[in-house]
Amino acid sequence: MNIGIIGLGKMGESIAYRLRQENVFVFGFDLSQTLCQNAAKHGVIITNTVEDLLKTSDIVWIMVPVAATPEIISIIQKHAKTGTIVIDGGNSYFKDSQKQAKILETTSIHFLDCGTSGGIWGRQNGFCLMVGGKKDIFDTVKPYLDIIAAPGGVLYTGPSGSGHYVKMVHNGIEYGIMQSYAEGFHVLQGGEFQDQLNLKDIATVWSHGSVIQSWLLELTKQIFEEYKDFDIISGAAQESGMGKWTIDEAKQHSIPISVIESAYKTRKESQKTGGNFATKLIALMRNKFGGHTVGKKEKS
Amino acid sequence: MNIGIIGLGKMGESIAYRLRQENVFVFGFDLSQTLCQNAAKHGVIITNTVEDLLKTSDIVWIMVPVAATPEIISIIQKHAKTGTIVIDGGNSYFKDSQKQAKILETTSIHFLDCGTSGGIWGRQNGFCLMVGGKKDIFDTVKPYLDIIAAPGGVLYTGPSGSGHYVKMVHNGIEYGIMQSYAEGFHVLQGGEFQDQLNLKDIATVWSHGSVIQSWLLELTKQIFEEYKDFDIISGAAQESGMGKWTIDEAKQHSIPISVIESAYKTRKESQKTGGNFATKLIALMRNKFGGHTVGKKEKS
Repeated sequence: MNIGIIGLGKMGESIAYRLRQENVFVFGFDLSQTLCQNAAKHGVIITNTVEDLLKTSDIVWIMVPVAATPEIISIIQKHAKTGTIVIDGGNSYFKDSQKQAKILETTSIHFLDCGTSGGIWGRQNGFCLMVGGKKDIFDTVKPYLDIIAAPGGVLYTGPSGSGHYVKMVHNGIEYGIMQSYAEGFHVLQGGEFQDQLNLKDIATVWSHGSVIQSWLLELTKQIFEEYKDFDIISGAAQESGMGKWTIDEAKQHSIPISVIESAYKTRKESQKTGGNFATKLIALMRNKFGGHTVGKKEKS
Repeated sequence: MNIGIIGLGKMGESIAYRLRQENVFVFGFDLSQTLCQNAAKHGVIITNTVEDLLKTSDIVWIMVPVAATPEIISIIQKHAKTGTIVIDGGNSYFKDSQKQAKILETTSIHFLDCGTSGGIWGRQNGFCLMVGGKKDIFDTVKPYLDIIAAPGGVLYTGPSGSGHYVKMVHNGIEYGIMQSYAEGFHVLQGGEFQDQLNLKDIATVWSHGSVIQSWLLELTKQIFEEYKDFDIISGAAQESGMGKWTIDEAKQHSIPISVIESAYKTRKESQKTGGNFATKLIALMRNKFGGHTVGKKEKS
């Protein structure tokens, strides 16, 4: 089957790259000429329009910012061939994905919602994919998902919306974990042994045999290796909305998630106040795993 | 050098075991006859009293509950040979360790405070050791620490107290991370896709390529494999005090750590209310990494 990828940014290009490594035919579309040229280097066949891409693609992978997804899907709805399988690999709201699946069903186009984790490291390590939709459609695309994913990194989560739902909760957990590390290192940096502790060495030793060893801690270690001067970094920690969705969902079901909520609030507040050592660390972690921009501190 | 270990419980026995695997002479003391017999199987030479152990040991490793540590140290102070190196491997409060170091110094006994992470898995994987005290004393015992630790799992953290300080913050972070996972799985269990999601499969796929992959997540996966019925488990999540110390320390230095604080409060509250799915998961995680008892739910 031919795969068309709409959106050739960090994530879309990585997915195209992994498929091309296994010689899958990949068509690509992006509004940015530079991103198209970049993907073409790996043998991605660039189309001039989404409509053109739809003509040649059996599977269409959407990897665009959340806000742009509905427009893309409405083009697909009008122009895709019968039987086309659409995979939304972005961070869409699960209720929107449930709706899209229903709408596309009426036009005999199949829809899978795919939560995609792994950030910029997915290109080399493979992604973690959480996929909702009809099981037989999932089974059809499974061989391609296996190429895109890390070994063991593909899961059929259940009905439409459940893939993006599981990814939403994944991101909520991510907020809490990042904030936990950030607060701990903040205490080490500013507490009793201020200026006497080597944060890089501590992140390193914790990565060897401790209860809190993790991939995010490995990245934190790299951050301390690379960034000597935290003063110039803005402590405004951004977020992409999925933490808030997790909180809303938890509230609707009367599930207390005070830690995830507190982590979210800390980021929002940091955007107003400029944050502190902990939120600087969060901004740097987001940069490290997702390639998100780190702000420079404004001169006072 | 001969090593004497006071306290042959889960942690002390594991340390003795690792040293014995490398044919180090190990003397051991514990009030429990059963624990002594258990350690003796690996060639640990059991002494009848702490005083006897002090006669033959150049390095004395204390691995007893926090409350019992001061008494043990006061016996050591009276009876240890000049030049004995005392290592407190337990979860002592760092300010107590700073005091102990000062007191012992006057009697020409050396003191190291060693934060020990890795739980019951340290026996096979090696521990993560964070060690404070005089650098030359640390260097003297380093070869033995290397045997006890996982590869790369030994760090000289700085002056007396800093080892237990770094471990205290480690545990604070641990509270936050555990609560983050627990809240996320609670949403998956009780939210929109209630009864439709396989938590074991989700923990598994997240362990392959996702941003939140970690050792604690691997243990969580094992929990979902082993425990089918969460109803019979008590949701009263215990804690050992280190989270509270981290919060007090942060407050003293005006460092906001709202996530660690919230995780701590959730545990305390669960002890009164009986908790929920999330705190059950926390109790099970504590059991999984540290062998801590999981309560059974009282019949209502």
